[in-house]
Amino acid sequence: MYHYPPSVLNLIKHLSRLPGIGEKTAERLAMHILKMSRRDAEQLSQSILALKESIQICSMCFALSDTETCKICSDPSRDASLVCVVEQPGDMASIEKSGAYPGLYHILQGVLSPMNNIGPDDIHIKELLARIASGKVTEVVLATSTSVEGESTAGFIAEKLRSLPVKVSRIASGVPIGGDLKYVDQVTLRRAMETRHAL
Amino acid sequence: MYHYPPSVLNLIKHLSRLPGIGEKTAERLAMHILKMSRRDAEQLSQSILALKESIQICSMCFALSDTETCKICSDPSRDASLVCVVEQPGDMASIEKSGAYPGLYHILQGVLSPMNNIGPDDIHIKELLARIASGKVTEVVLATSTSVEGESTAGFIAEKLRSLPVKVSRIASGVPIGGDLKYVDQVTLRRAMETRHAL
Repeated sequence: MYHYPPSVLNLIKHLSRLPGIGEKTAERLAMHILKMSRRDAEQLSQSILALKESIQICSMCFALSDTETCKICSDPSRDASLVCVVEQPGDMASIEKSGAYPGLYHILQGVLSPMNNIGPDDIHIKELLARIASGKVTEVVLATSTSVEGESTAGFIAEKLRSLPVKVSRIASGVPIGGDLKYVDQVTLRRAMETRHAL
Repeated sequence: MYHYPPSVLNLIKHLSRLPGIGEKTAERLAMHILKMSRRDAEQLSQSILALKESIQICSMCFALSDTETCKICSDPSRDASLVCVVEQPGDMASIEKSGAYPGLYHILQGVLSPMNNIGPDDIHIKELLARIASGKVTEVVLATSTSVEGESTAGFIAEKLRSLPVKVSRIASGVPIGGDLKYVDQVTLRRAMETRHAL
C-alpha cells in the first residue's frame, strides 16, 4: 500500500530505530527534514558521519574523545590524585556541568548486572585497579548510579580497593535541592536521615 | 567548560534543532548513534541526504514523489473522477492507510490563515480549480482538518466550486470509533448529533 515515496519511507524507517522515536515521531521528523534547507540537512547528515569518524575512547579513562587522551586527562590543572568512577560518558558530562569536581574520571562503560550476564570482566574494573595500583591516586569517588545495580557495583569496587592505600568515597544520596519532602520517596528519605551530618 | 568532544556536541546541536527534540533527548540520541554500528549510522546519514536529492512534488496533485507524476496519479486503477483535497502530504498518507478511498488527491500544502497572512494564492487552490475545470472530475471530497482554519478553507473552496458541474462533499465529523461518549468534547458531540443518519 502506498503512503509515501520510498525515500521518505526509508528515512522514517531509519529514524524510528532510534530510542524513544516511534513511527509517528519519525514521520513528523521526516516532514521537518523535507522542509529544512538543503544546507541544514547536509549538516545534520554530516554530523552523524563525523561522529563515527572522529570519536575515540580515551586510553586512560575511557571517556569519549576526539584525541587519544581526552581533554580532562591531558589537562595539567585537574587534580590527578582524585578519580571519580562513573557508569557512562553522560554521567561524566553531568558531573562536569555541576562544576563541583576538580579531579579525573574513570568510565566503567556499564554496570555489574548478573541478570544481563554482565560481570566484572565486562566493564572497565581491571583497568581501574591497575590505574590505582600505579600510585598517584589518593581518593576514589564512586559515582555509579543509585540503582540496585549501581549500588552493588560501587560495593564491589570498594571491596576490591580495600587492600590498596587509597581512600574510597561514595557520592551522597538524599533529598534533591529545591525538593519538597512530601514528594521524596521513602527509600531516599531514609538514606537522607541515616547519612545526616552535623551543621 | 568541557562536557563532550566537539563532534558529539556538534551532533547534539543539529539534533536538538529538530521539532520536539530538546537538548536532553538530543544527548540521548547522540549516545545511541555512538553505539550504532558504522553501517547503520551511515545508512541513517545517507537516508537524510537521499531524501533531499530524490524528492520532488507531483506536478498534478502536489504530493511528495520520487518521480514527476506521483504513484497515485499515475495509477490507472485509481478512480480519476474523485479528488480528495487535503492540507498536507501526511493527511494523504493517513487516508491511504485507512484504505477507504479509491480516488486521487490534491494537496493544498497549507490552509487559509489570515492571522498568518496565508491567502488563497498562497496554497494550491488555483491549481485545484483548473484541474476540476478540465473536466474529468465528478466529485471533490474536502478533507481539510476540522480546525477553524481547515473548516473555513473547506467553505472557501466549496464556494469557489459552486459554479462548476461537480459534486462537493466534506468528510464526516463525529464520535471516534471505540471512543467513550463521556470523553468526547461538546463541539464534536453536537456535530455528531446534527449530522446523524438513518440506519
